Amino acid sequence: MSKIIGESLPNIPWQERGDKKGPVWRYDNNPIIGRDGNKVSNSVFNSAVVPFGKGFAGIFRCDSKSISMDIFVGFSDDGIHWKIEDEPITFTGADEEILRNEYRYDPRVCKIDDKYYITWCNGYHAPTIGVGYTTDFKHFVQLENAFLPFNRNGVLFPRKINDLYVMLSRPSDNGHTPFGDIFISQSKDMEFWGKHRYVFGTVHGNDSAWQSTKVGAGPIPIETDEGWLLIYHGVITTCNGFVYRMGVALLDKDEPWKVKARSKDYILAPYEYYECVGDVPNVTFPCAALTDADTGRIAIYYGCADTVTGLAFTTVDDLMQHLREHSL
Amino acid sequence: MSKIIGESLPNIPWQERGDKKGPVWRYDNNPIIGRDGNKVSNSVFNSAVVPFGKGFAGIFRCDSKSISMDIFVGFSDDGIHWKIEDEPITFTGADEEILRNEYRYDPRVCKIDDKYYITWCNGYHAPTIGVGYTTDFKHFVQLENAFLPFNRNGVLFPRKINDLYVMLSRPSDNGHTPFGDIFISQSKDMEFWGKHRYVFGTVHGNDSAWQSTKVGAGPIPIETDEGWLLIYHGVITTCNGFVYRMGVALLDKDEPWKVKARSKDYILAPYEYYECVGDVPNVTFPCAALTDADTGRIAIYYGCADTVTGLAFTTVDDLMQHLREHSL
Amino acid sequence: MSKIIGESLPNIPWQERGDKKGPVWRYDNNPIIGRDGNKVSNSVFNSAVVPFGKGFAGIFRCDSKSISMDIFVGFSDDGIHWKIEDEPITFTGADEEILRNEYRYDPRVCKIDDKYYITWCNGYHAPTIGVGYTTDFKHFVQLENAFLPFNRNGVLFPRKINDLYVMLSRPSDNGHTPFGDIFISQSKDMEFWGKHRYVFGTVHGNDSAWQSTKVGAGPIPIETDEGWLLIYHGVITTCNGFVYRMGVALLDKDEPWKVKARSKDYILAPYEYYECVGDVPNVTFPCAALTDADTGRIAIYYGCADTVTGLAFTTVDDLMQHLREHSL
Amino acid sequence: MSKIIGESLPNIPWQERGDKKGPVWRYDNNPIIGRDGNKVSNSVFNSAVVPFGKGFAGIFRCDSKSISMDIFVGFSDDGIHWKIEDEPITFTGADEEILRNEYRYDPRVCKIDDKYYITWCNGYHAPTIGVGYTTDFKHFVQLENAFLPFNRNGVLFPRKINDLYVMLSRPSDNGHTPFGDIFISQSKDMEFWGKHRYVFGTVHGNDSAWQSTKVGAGPIPIETDEGWLLIYHGVITTCNGFVYRMGVALLDKDEPWKVKARSKDYILAPYEYYECVGDVPNVTFPCAALTDADTGRIAIYYGCADTVTGLAFTTVDDLMQHLREHSL
Amino acid sequence: MSKIIGESLPNIPWQERGDKKGPVWRYDNNPIIGRDGNKVSNSVFNSAVVPFGKGFAGIFRCDSKSISMDIFVGFSDDGIHWKIEDEPITFTGADEEILRNEYRYDPRVCKIDDKYYITWCNGYHAPTIGVGYTTDFKHFVQLENAFLPFNRNGVLFPRKINDLYVMLSRPSDNGHTPFGDIFISQSKDMEFWGKHRYVFGTVHGNDSAWQSTKVGAGPIPIETDEGWLLIYHGVITTCNGFVYRMGVALLDKDEPWKVKARSKDYILAPYEYYECVGDVPNVTFPCAALTDADTGRIAIYYGCADTVTGLAFTTVDDLMQHLREHSL
Amino acid sequence: MSKIIGESLPNIPWQERGDKKGPVWRYDNNPIIGRDGNKVSNSVFNSAVVPFGKGFAGIFRCDSKSISMDIFVGFSDDGIHWKIEDEPITFTGADEEILRNEYRYDPRVCKIDDKYYITWCNGYHAPTIGVGYTTDFKHFVQLENAFLPFNRNGVLFPRKINDLYVMLSRPSDNGHTPFGDIFISQSKDMEFWGKHRYVFGTVHGNDSAWQSTKVGAGPIPIETDEGWLLIYHGVITTCNGFVYRMGVALLDKDEPWKVKARSKDYILAPYEYYECVGDVPNVTFPCAALTDADTGRIAIYYGCADTVTGLAFTTVDDLMQHLREHSL
Repeated sequence: MSKIIGESLPNIPWQERGDKKGPVWRYDNNPIIGRDGNKVSNSVFNSAVVPFGKGFAGIFRCDSKSISMDIFVGFSDDGIHWKIEDEPITFTGADEEILRNEYRYDPRVCKIDDKYYITWCNGYHAPTIGVGYTTDFKHFVQLENAFLPFNRNGVLFPRKINDLYVMLSRPSDNGHTPFGDIFISQSKDMEFWGKHRYVFGTVHGNDSAWQSTKVGAGPIPIETDEGWLLIYHGVITTCNGFVYRMGVALLDKDEPWKVKARSKDYILAPYEYYECVGDVPNVTFPCAALTDADTGRIAIYYGCADTVTGLAFTTVDDLMQHLREHSL
Repeated sequence: MSKIIGESLPNIPWQERGDKKGPVWRYDNNPIIGRDGNKVSNSVFNSAVVPFGKGFAGIFRCDSKSISMDIFVGFSDDGIHWKIEDEPITFTGADEEILRNEYRYDPRVCKIDDKYYITWCNGYHAPTIGVGYTTDFKHFVQLENAFLPFNRNGVLFPRKINDLYVMLSRPSDNGHTPFGDIFISQSKDMEFWGKHRYVFGTVHGNDSAWQSTKVGAGPIPIETDEGWLLIYHGVITTCNGFVYRMGVALLDKDEPWKVKARSKDYILAPYEYYECVGDVPNVTFPCAALTDADTGRIAIYYGCADTVTGLAFTTVDDLMQHLREHSL
Repeated sequence: MSKIIGESLPNIPWQERGDKKGPVWRYDNNPIIGRDGNKVSNSVFNSAVVPFGKGFAGIFRCDSKSISMDIFVGFSDDGIHWKIEDEPITFTGADEEILRNEYRYDPRVCKIDDKYYITWCNGYHAPTIGVGYTTDFKHFVQLENAFLPFNRNGVLFPRKINDLYVMLSRPSDNGHTPFGDIFISQSKDMEFWGKHRYVFGTVHGNDSAWQSTKVGAGPIPIETDEGWLLIYHGVITTCNGFVYRMGVALLDKDEPWKVKARSKDYILAPYEYYECVGDVPNVTFPCAALTDADTGRIAIYYGCADTVTGLAFTTVDDLMQHLREHSL
Repeated sequence: MSKIIGESLPNIPWQERGDKKGPVWRYDNNPIIGRDGNKVSNSVFNSAVVPFGKGFAGIFRCDSKSISMDIFVGFSDDGIHWKIEDEPITFTGADEEILRNEYRYDPRVCKIDDKYYITWCNGYHAPTIGVGYTTDFKHFVQLENAFLPFNRNGVLFPRKINDLYVMLSRPSDNGHTPFGDIFISQSKDMEFWGKHRYVFGTVHGNDSAWQSTKVGAGPIPIETDEGWLLIYHGVITTCNGFVYRMGVALLDKDEPWKVKARSKDYILAPYEYYECVGDVPNVTFPCAALTDADTGRIAIYYGCADTVTGLAFTTVDDLMQHLREHSL
Repeated sequence: MSKIIGESLPNIPWQERGDKKGPVWRYDNNPIIGRDGNKVSNSVFNSAVVPFGKGFAGIFRCDSKSISMDIFVGFSDDGIHWKIEDEPITFTGADEEILRNEYRYDPRVCKIDDKYYITWCNGYHAPTIGVGYTTDFKHFVQLENAFLPFNRNGVLFPRKINDLYVMLSRPSDNGHTPFGDIFISQSKDMEFWGKHRYVFGTVHGNDSAWQSTKVGAGPIPIETDEGWLLIYHGVITTCNGFVYRMGVALLDKDEPWKVKARSKDYILAPYEYYECVGDVPNVTFPCAALTDADTGRIAIYYGCADTVTGLAFTTVDDLMQHLREHSL
Repeated sequence: MSKIIGESLPNIPWQERGDKKGPVWRYDNNPIIGRDGNKVSNSVFNSAVVPFGKGFAGIFRCDSKSISMDIFVGFSDDGIHWKIEDEPITFTGADEEILRNEYRYDPRVCKIDDKYYITWCNGYHAPTIGVGYTTDFKHFVQLENAFLPFNRNGVLFPRKINDLYVMLSRPSDNGHTPFGDIFISQSKDMEFWGKHRYVFGTVHGNDSAWQSTKVGAGPIPIETDEGWLLIYHGVITTCNGFVYRMGVALLDKDEPWKVKARSKDYILAPYEYYECVGDVPNVTFPCAALTDADTGRIAIYYGCADTVTGLAFTTVDDLMQHLREHSL
């Protein structure tokens, strides 16, 4: 039995496995958020949620009906039914140069101490990692971009390690990047980043081809007594395009660039209509996970076909067992 | 209240909006033409219809079961139920060299005076704009190709402007062209074309990314008291291919290369199964519109997933309002 | 009336045409094998079956949940309900160097005399044609790879011709090959191959565009009194990827590199959900056919969307008629 | 003995063949214009000259030291030593929209009656064919662009044929076009163009691979008693890029889209240092030819390596003999 | 008259302009270092030199005869004749993980206070910016990589600005990057970097096409009374590959991400044989500059055709004049 | 001291090393065959020579002035001055189907017993390995193509090994193949080939990047007391195209798919003008070697820039020493 190190979340969204197989199972009423998540949305996906107050708050990627990509606040009592605002987030605080907003997408939210840090893919002449925070999901302060372009999928750890803030990211290029490994970077102050280390990359050959084109961090890493559980996405290139699937890895607690285990088998993949059909077919893209330390329950929020938002469930034990049985 | 300048069409196919949202709403019984539109068809899409006699006539793109692309005549009493001939159109009249028929696709039909002009993508060593006409949809006369290759989406205006015939087109390359802007050309005689002008092109950046790869004219422009309403297609390149959506623009009445307004938000996009799944997933491609000047009603015919034909409805006021509220 | 030259197979899986059109019709309960064909499978497709004992045996391509490609034995009483083993095939016999197993996919099974020969796409530094045999579907002997890389879709004839074993194949490159013609090779001993001849290739222009990108042999050729019936796949490149369809050709009985007839129209194409949606959308890929010489019935097994396995039916007369009426 | 139909030009630049082989021979003092053709030039190439007054005038492509492409007037007494102006040409007369000047390159000059018509690759949202004229090489009037984009290498015939102006061109795409055939277009008024016909294209296979990627017209066609002599460029794609060579064709006098003969062997190819080394290695690109009807002499001006300008010589008889002996 | 703010260097390598034109002129005896710069070299280029002791020291990119890329120390009395060591540099000090050495190339050397900082393109799973220093060119200490991959052309400023170290770089992809803008990053400690700002990028259109594909910083910026003079490389894509040329920009002294002037015309380009012919034709790539504050003399070291090393000269006044007369 | 196992060749072309460095040195009067090797040639390169009679015979690749690729016989007294026939080789004997001649290039000649076997890249619907023989260089018999397409650089061993003929080749694709490893195939009869084995491939990373894109066998392997010396070509992809260099490997005498040593450093690379400039810049491509068993001398014939033919010298000891000192 593994233990999640974190807070209890008795109201975590949850549905028992029933007769569903596999390390992760879908919510029966998926998708939980459809195309019309707010008034302007063409699609709502690749979004991040956290416990907030008595319920939940989230930062959502809504592509508008002009297909402009931006991030919006939303709230929910139960983590399943969401009310998303119709206006995108406004940040204050950073240098004017940084507050310029070319585009924003694929947010993550990470609570560190009393702040909810938001990271997202931020258009500053090219995609890089934007960083900001809020304490109330009403006022948002933007900090410096963490890195130079080109970068995507910046994911913070929920506490300092060795007195340094730690962020995963996936250096990219300026298009639909056909490569991508996960690196880690460290910072004293959330402003200057360094001590970059390679974490893990794509897998060549036939062993684990679902993650042969690129891999990128998904939800905020989950601290356990055995290390950090990292749910991530992996991509293969078929003759008809990319397929995005989900995997899991276990990173060393103190040196999280050291990989203790990593899934050879995916943990979720496009099977359902809403995952296979949409603006970008065949995408399951995890961006957030809620956890309950008491029960070990994990609820994963993931984008489906770049169109809608799905919810899936697992437990820390299910993931650990998967890592033991289906590891690279 | 805007006015369509044109004929009344009391028998225009029509279904009220009901509780559907957006500037354009789908017909409940879509697709109106399935794969088996005629005996040889693999798919029927990107086709053009006009009022004719007491009912309607149309020129249909049917890809055969050998996936050869050709155009066929069809007739309908109500604009919804169509009988399409099993043999493709035969033209007479033009130079032998021009009558050669490598392939024909994506027709438009435009009534000017008493002739129904047909334009289509015509294979003459490469794709260019074929031009012909009929008065009875039985006999068809082919004229010279309007332009040099490579060109697609040639769309005539329904009357001369400044004493010249006017045609929109989208210059292309010899493949699945990853670029494309709309130009206008003018002619005294439908044979020699010149005075080419740029009309509008793709939109860079995040503002209106659905039209960032290419744009091309759709149905024959609709004359209104405020200018020409042009329904067009716009394309984005995702990591898994193109998505074709619909937009609308308002062109100056006398200098139609001047754009008075242009939609930032799309007006229709692949949402339904028959639009998202098919020989080419994620395509909604408008090629014709019926209008009723009395009511301002507009019925749009559009190809779905390069496989079947859909019908959607709007009004001149809905489109004008969309242009006012969601303009670039 | 054409005749299949071969054995009777009174228990051939069969369903009457009913009111279905076209030369080939689908089984109503398709797909007959879903994603969960065995314990490890992500997908089961592009697989080969033969009569064996009182029922049927087969070699199945199961991509695992790590998306590793391998081949597995399965058995069935009725050819429809299959039990597939959970462990991939183990070969013995060949040189150690050849027994190395980088990946294996797209198997075919061909009974010649008393041996069931298996050919597949075999990873030996790159894709080439692996060859092995079994007599009992329990013990498997691997022979030398037939060819140098890069090759795929190696398909044996079910008897020697002119005292030589004969194999079709589709030379390829090292990726999602955007070209491909069918060649034939000959051998005295199943070890050394030569006398390579071109059989047929892609079709340019508008005549038969469904087979304009690549073509490759499907099931073991079916001997008839008029020649060898070859069911094959053809591929077109759309702006959103490849579409795989099925065709049929008639090859000369004694000089099978001579094509007597070849279908201009496809005989089956992706129409159904399970053919259009899946890990690789829009694929129908035939790999095996059962035949009953008494009735002329043919049951075709084909991969659907690189995800599941479908079954379709036809007769030798239906195919011959198709070739007469829709030939290139 | 063939005859050039045209004016005498006793002062045509000329150098006897000496012991040089081949249908065309180089001037000993090549290049005749170096990189520093005028004050701003990085390179001077792909330029056009005509007899003018007692000497010669020309329109030169000079790429500046900012590598902006523009066209400049130059004058010469002997056709070999040139004085090129330091300011690019200014046109008047056309619609403001057309006078916009994004870029201009690869000019040709064609005397028809008393006007010197200039055609060039004109940047109007994309490359197309600009048209203008002068009578004195001091004042320049610009007309409408002949065609829609994308087009290059527009070359006029030196007189009307069948009462129509006639222009060759090579439809292109928006990059370093990897394809290209020669078409012909016709006009009553130099403003509206139509009756487009295919002239000739690339050659597939091994027969004449130097012209397998693209072909385009070079100098103004030379009228002879046997038809129009067209010197053109042909391009092959090697693993290290394009190689541009020169060929010759004979077009029908009255229906110049009919090809009477066409060279299988090139007539000039990059051999010399200044042709093989420069801003674009391995280019010989002919844009102009002077002819003397009395002697049959032809002086060809050609761009070398997109860097400097070369001069080469031939005679109408040499070219006709080449066409007889080395024709496709 | 502009002033270089820096040290005197009376022994700066120098040759008067003579009758050479342009803002920069070549040394008559170029290349100063040939292919055989040391025992193992295939080529010596893109290298950095600084005054050291009574002469000069340098860090040289030598590609070996196995075409492995590494950096080597060299020394010279006069800055022209160099003795380069046969063994590559060995660093100590950094984390083992960082000392791993996949490849190293394109070094720059920057004296800040009493340390000579070296930056280079460092292979750490992918190209990024390696950082180290020496005080004696015998012992070398490596620091953390400045950035995540993918990055190249990291160039330090020779003093802190606003109490921060400042580095220019050109974020890239994992191949022969076809894009590239210059960004600036800042650091308190040479270990953690942030406050990334865009400096300048490529130029679209015809204005300055030599820098339309990518731009990257070259030598250490030269401080003047008017700001920082930055010599940089710009690249255009021709149909036969990239051409690398040199330009100059003037950056604001205190906010060096603000561009005060930038050259429209290049200042040096491949003209000479050793620049046009070599392992990569048509490359002039500046990596170092010596300056003499007393006279304003500047000696530029630049790689030629990725094969040999050239030397060129200019003065601060020549560059400032160029910026005044040929600015974007 | 190593020994060549073979015949004496006292009249081997030879020039002492002088002060030239490296394992292989060039002939001073290179190129020995220019562009005008015969009457029709545009270029003569990638050609094969053998001792014959009192002098030498060869099979030459001459690309004609139409850039058609074919092979021609030539003779020489001294191996340096060659007389090449003006008509390409005519074969007899094989199946009509095989005698079809789409194109032929890059020949090798291998004496086995009393026959001179010729292998070349043969156009049979696509590139594959043609095989023929002669005894007198007047009459030529063509055999079956050894392999299916796509293949190039087929190189025979000069005697049977383990009673089987043995051939190296480099499987390819249908273009300017950007990959390529060396395989070996075996045959009892020169007609049916099998027992294909991987020999060696490209080298990833920085260790030996000159051979990172593709490698292919060059001259007939040279038998020595230590194994087979194989001179081969290796290719790197720069931003401006491929560079072809030469390396050497030592293969096991009895199991020649086993590599005993392989050069990390190239043995010859494009340095000279005639190697760096030509129809394909930067190519040195070895196709033949003469050897003298008495002295250990080796004379290598190699194509230069796909334009002319060069000669270079080495000895078995030089190559063995290179392998000892610069091995992977």
